Amino acid sequence: MAKAADVYFAVDPWKIIEKGFNPAYSRVSESVFSLANENMGVRGYFDEGGCQDSLRGFYVNGVYDVEHIGRSYKGIIDKSHFMIPTAEWLGTCITVDGEKLELQQSNFSDFSRTLDMRAGTLERSFIWHTASGKDLKITFLRFLNMVNRERAYQRITLKACNFAGKVGFSSAVSFDIAHEGRGKCFWQDVKCEASKNSVMLKGRTLQSEQEVFAGAIVDVSATVDVKIAGKTAVVSCTLNLVQGQEIRADKRAVILFDGTEGELLWQNGLKAMDALGNETIEDALRIQREYWDAYWRTSDIQIDAAEEADEDAVTAEQQGIRFCSFQLAQTYSGGSMRHNIGAKGLTGEAYNGHAFWDTEACCLPFYLFTNPAAAKDLLLFRYNTLQNAIERAKMLDCKGACYPIATLNGDEACPLWQHASLQLQPSTAVAYGIWHYVHLTKDQEFLRQYGAEILLQIARFMASRVELGGKNGKYGYFGVMGPDEFHMMVNNNAYTNYMGMRTLAYAAEVLEQMRCEFSDQYAKLVQKTALDEDEIKDWMHIARNMYIPQDPEGLIEQHDGYFDLPHTDINAIPVNEFPLYEHWAYDRIYRSDMIKQPDVLMFLYLYNSSFTHQEKLINYDFYQPRTIHESSLSPAIHSILAAELDKMDEAIRFFGYATRLDLDNYNRNTREGLHITSIALAWVNIVYGFAGLRSDGEMLRFAPRLPDRWKRLQFSVIYQGRVILISMEPGKTSFRIESGEAVEVMIYNQLYTLDKNETMIDRQ
Amino acid sequence: MAKAADVYFAVDPWKIIEKGFNPAYSRVSESVFSLANENMGVRGYFDEGGCQDSLRGFYVNGVYDVEHIGRSYKGIIDKSHFMIPTAEWLGTCITVDGEKLELQQSNFSDFSRTLDMRAGTLERSFIWHTASGKDLKITFLRFLNMVNRERAYQRITLKACNFAGKVGFSSAVSFDIAHEGRGKCFWQDVKCEASKNSVMLKGRTLQSEQEVFAGAIVDVSATVDVKIAGKTAVVSCTLNLVQGQEIRADKRAVILFDGTEGELLWQNGLKAMDALGNETIEDALRIQREYWDAYWRTSDIQIDAAEEADEDAVTAEQQGIRFCSFQLAQTYSGGSMRHNIGAKGLTGEAYNGHAFWDTEACCLPFYLFTNPAAAKDLLLFRYNTLQNAIERAKMLDCKGACYPIATLNGDEACPLWQHASLQLQPSTAVAYGIWHYVHLTKDQEFLRQYGAEILLQIARFMASRVELGGKNGKYGYFGVMGPDEFHMMVNNNAYTNYMGMRTLAYAAEVLEQMRCEFSDQYAKLVQKTALDEDEIKDWMHIARNMYIPQDPEGLIEQHDGYFDLPHTDINAIPVNEFPLYEHWAYDRIYRSDMIKQPDVLMFLYLYNSSFTHQEKLINYDFYQPRTIHESSLSPAIHSILAAELDKMDEAIRFFGYATRLDLDNYNRNTREGLHITSIALAWVNIVYGFAGLRSDGEMLRFAPRLPDRWKRLQFSVIYQGRVILISMEPGKTSFRIESGEAVEVMIYNQLYTLDKNETMIDRQ
Repeated sequence: MAKAADVYFAVDPWKIIEKGFNPAYSRVSESVFSLANENMGVRGYFDEGGCQDSLRGFYVNGVYDVEHIGRSYKGIIDKSHFMIPTAEWLGTCITVDGEKLELQQSNFSDFSRTLDMRAGTLERSFIWHTASGKDLKITFLRFLNMVNRERAYQRITLKACNFAGKVGFSSAVSFDIAHEGRGKCFWQDVKCEASKNSVMLKGRTLQSEQEVFAGAIVDVSATVDVKIAGKTAVVSCTLNLVQGQEIRADKRAVILFDGTEGELLWQNGLKAMDALGNETIEDALRIQREYWDAYWRTSDIQIDAAEEADEDAVTAEQQGIRFCSFQLAQTYSGGSMRHNIGAKGLTGEAYNGHAFWDTEACCLPFYLFTNPAAAKDLLLFRYNTLQNAIERAKMLDCKGACYPIATLNGDEACPLWQHASLQLQPSTAVAYGIWHYVHLTKDQEFLRQYGAEILLQIARFMASRVELGGKNGKYGYFGVMGPDEFHMMVNNNAYTNYMGMRTLAYAAEVLEQMRCEFSDQYAKLVQKTALDEDEIKDWMHIARNMYIPQDPEGLIEQHDGYFDLPHTDINAIPVNEFPLYEHWAYDRIYRSDMIKQPDVLMFLYLYNSSFTHQEKLINYDFYQPRTIHESSLSPAIHSILAAELDKMDEAIRFFGYATRLDLDNYNRNTREGLHITSIALAWVNIVYGFAGLRSDGEMLRFAPRLPDRWKRLQFSVIYQGRVILISMEPGKTSFRIESGEAVEVMIYNQLYTLDKNETMIDRQ
Repeated sequence: MAKAADVYFAVDPWKIIEKGFNPAYSRVSESVFSLANENMGVRGYFDEGGCQDSLRGFYVNGVYDVEHIGRSYKGIIDKSHFMIPTAEWLGTCITVDGEKLELQQSNFSDFSRTLDMRAGTLERSFIWHTASGKDLKITFLRFLNMVNRERAYQRITLKACNFAGKVGFSSAVSFDIAHEGRGKCFWQDVKCEASKNSVMLKGRTLQSEQEVFAGAIVDVSATVDVKIAGKTAVVSCTLNLVQGQEIRADKRAVILFDGTEGELLWQNGLKAMDALGNETIEDALRIQREYWDAYWRTSDIQIDAAEEADEDAVTAEQQGIRFCSFQLAQTYSGGSMRHNIGAKGLTGEAYNGHAFWDTEACCLPFYLFTNPAAAKDLLLFRYNTLQNAIERAKMLDCKGACYPIATLNGDEACPLWQHASLQLQPSTAVAYGIWHYVHLTKDQEFLRQYGAEILLQIARFMASRVELGGKNGKYGYFGVMGPDEFHMMVNNNAYTNYMGMRTLAYAAEVLEQMRCEFSDQYAKLVQKTALDEDEIKDWMHIARNMYIPQDPEGLIEQHDGYFDLPHTDINAIPVNEFPLYEHWAYDRIYRSDMIKQPDVLMFLYLYNSSFTHQEKLINYDFYQPRTIHESSLSPAIHSILAAELDKMDEAIRFFGYATRLDLDNYNRNTREGLHITSIALAWVNIVYGFAGLRSDGEMLRFAPRLPDRWKRLQFSVIYQGRVILISMEPGKTSFRIESGEAVEVMIYNQLYTLDKNETMIDRQ
């Protein structure tokens, strides 16, 4: 845990504030000041440019291009896809007396940049002191409409402080944008048109041949001139400023990616432009505020500092957890089954926009308890890409469906075969996600209509990939990489075996139940999938005979031979050797008992109720000192288990940077984008860790353990139509149903019925 | 062993003969009809072209270019190098009445192509029936001078059978040649000049910036015209043919790659052209014949059929083993320490011309017993690339020298990290090669001057790569791939541990001996390598405590957990699934006890005297049925051990295609080039297998076991300046020193002194 905060932003419970501009921190700020509305995302870059270290990333969810890798061996992908930047609609140029505004060249003061998490806006302002001695105050406001998600807004406010006169102004929409990592523009056949103060463009990607419409209306109190050059349309004018008065340039944009193309897309774009024209920015700002108000009412986590605690530090945690919640809700809030959650969301090119198994394994609980409809949509994404997973399984000489380790469109996009071919956890995580969703929501209709088919195909895959082991005579997975990516091609990885066992058993159970209770739907499914009922028996047989290597004390061996590995003292590794992937020879990380991230502990977390306290304790004590946390997903799982085991010091230590991973740039790579899926675990860390929520048993369970430095931790969860408000204080916790029916839950292992009256439980 | 002969060429004891031309077999023929003289190699393609399925491969040993792969992780190479085709000097165009000779279009008869292994020439002839009704007999002869190795020759003989008249003729030398796999010409800055009937060219490679001179003198009885166009120079003329008389066009070429460049290379080229001009083709042909006569006198293996045997089949074996010997001697015969032996020699682009650990592990015995000076040169190649191996070890976070798995110039060129980073056998094989060479030749001077330094650096590497194991408390190698490439990243691979142990112990022993007996040389070496004497103690400590997993019966576990792997019945794999790398998903081959090639059996073969009969028997019986022989290097090792264990049926079955692997295209990929390193094992298979030669004990040992279908097997070996002639007949074997001193050897475990008189030993 050789990681330290790099504190830069001002602490505020509801805002992220940058006072003064530090070019060296430019890309980190761009990432932190990202906005998104699930449909699109934009880094917090300067509208007017002029910043040397900058990634002008504007991304539309689902827009990607394809690269051919060349065929090597069977089962190794020969093409990959990656998110590309899309129509850049914020480009602005401001000139005074022939001098162009570029902050790294210009003289300026009073710089501030503020992300307002209640308003859902990003604002930046400063006073530009021109070479000609004029002071011009400029404010940039931007936001992405959370309701009409193809709409985006920019408001530029200019105020001549000490002069009256002309300011040159232009505003562009452009498809002439390069993917930074690949140094290339992936847009072709760009059509541009203009009409008065509007511009309309349409572009097509090179290989994937996706089409996107981008248009903007620029409202200024001046005569505008529109120029089209190549892939760019520019609206320009001269603004006449009166001293002391504010003048505005408003830009309302539409970025439409609706699956249509050609003339139809163009017409859809024009219609969207018409609709946009009927709504003012003020209207949009009000609706945006209402949206976020509603969000915070149900989804906020409130933290208050204890008397003796450092109040600023706790406010920083408060700010941090809200930032996590805000970014997660921006990245994904449901409503589309075409999208998933990229490891970096829509905030950068790193990881190519790909979603990993993080979605089901890490992010899902956040949605299950704050936005169950979004959780369902995430699972429907997997249903809609089931065919891709079936094709992938075939490539691997297997049956059924193998879900990709990295994807935007459902196809495997990870060019590293060792991950793409050996990691079975995306498939078992989808099965777990279905189980978890159905278990919590009782949405049997979803299960029968979608879930059962996915489960069937995943079970087929897991049954075709399993081997009957050598000496132990049991089933197991050979040649796999478990969640711990520091052990590549191992046999009987306990996580994979255990998750495979649960997957097979659950699939069999679901299908058996369907056969008995919904025979028509079952018959249709059997026909569609050519299911042989012996398959189900086979799954049950495998599940019953799966090898889980556990000693009499309960210690589980991570994989065959793990206990025979040389020991690495992880505390002896010098700080400057992190991250290990950059500083160690690639093969060196695979040669000892050092673990990248929880593996055994991961399934003890996922199926928490299935293991005894003693099992959790012995495994935690064994694996914790061997885990180096090179994945940002790692510490939260450790923190949750430490809290459960009443190791509160460790729980708090591992929680350490969870809420402020990106705000304080702990991993020194926030410049590449936000760790969106890790951000989800900050929420999980608090709710599962300190409130002790467990959601895998018969009913919800709580075991609140408030850290000493907090006076209060309050949040609510949505559970089967109810909103349950939990308010933890030192020594006691109150539970109350805010809306909906009474419900039975376990608190500290005792049964309680929660209702609209407060149930107050003492700390145990 | 689901492989079958694809018989195409005529059987002859000294020649490879193709009667009639089969376009479908074109590339296989091109490979089989390859010529080389170590310095250069040429596939048997048609001088005049016109063959659709053809690879016009002419290669100069050591000429390569470089491609950048892009950096991924530390220790994974970011650039690779590969052999490229060099100046094509055989290009010929023949026209009659405006019709161009192209065999796949033209009408022809009496086609034959013959490789003469005593003459060292390739001859092709046919009668061309032109559309205008003329019959023209054409003979192409080519050879590469085995003595003056920059010289190459082509003789074209034309005979007008039924007409008199004009024939258009032109002959080219060109650098305008593409690497087929990469679809690109790697030659630039080509300079061309002409003088009378001579052309001179010089080209430079794109990235590696190597320069090659190519020139030719074309002797024809006609006035010639020389044209230079781009990277090509063409000599043309009109030949006046008299009916029934032969007319010749002789081309003598120089291809010079001597490490110089620019004007110096040009001058060297011109000098070489002058020298060439002083020697006729007849002279060169005579010298070539003398060279090969001398070669066969000492290196031939003669096989005679038993009375009851199929004589043709045995003649085919005789032809096969001579073909192997001929190709191996062509590819490498010593005299240059810049060259090694590519897996495909100089016969194709597959494997990029790279040499693997095959050189020391497979090829060296052939040279040790037929051409010890060449064996020394092969080891000096490793000495000359020691610095590259030191750099490579650093890349891998190790000390000392790590030899590459694939290379032309000493740098690691294998872009597959799993091979380049995990296979330690190139390094241990170099150490083994030094030991084997010194053990047999007693060349202590080589050992002190070169070998000791290599051994020191390899021992350093092996000591820095070793780990102190987990439970067993011994040393071992973790995260390695042994010779069996079907188990990728395993721990305590017995081969790697055993070879590491022997390497460390031998290095320590050599250095200790130097310290005591040659203190000056030792002191210099210590200074040069900054050797700390504690290092030597450390190596001995590791060697003494190396983990070799062997049970009380002597069975050795291939690697940790091997015995716990699922079993694959290799006989149940359908024939059409071979080769597995093409038909199975890549990761699937790693999930069972199926073995690609000998691993435990490999070190039982290499250090044969160190293991008991019982150890060999139990391990052979265990591993043999699990080995699928997907490497062409595999069956010979099995055959040798089977013969030793008196399993003669199996020994003969595994010997099966050894001598005719390429002649009968057993692996169905001879079209890509010859399996040069496998060819070496055909010789080893006979000498170690059926003569039972063992060279790792105190003295040479023999245990002749003649296969029933042979009446006689006769060959000689060179041993410490002696030539020992061994002649095996049913029931008895005679030994005789042909030249040199008497020597003691073991035959069937009894001591004999061989001298110039015949020693006759009965079969035991």
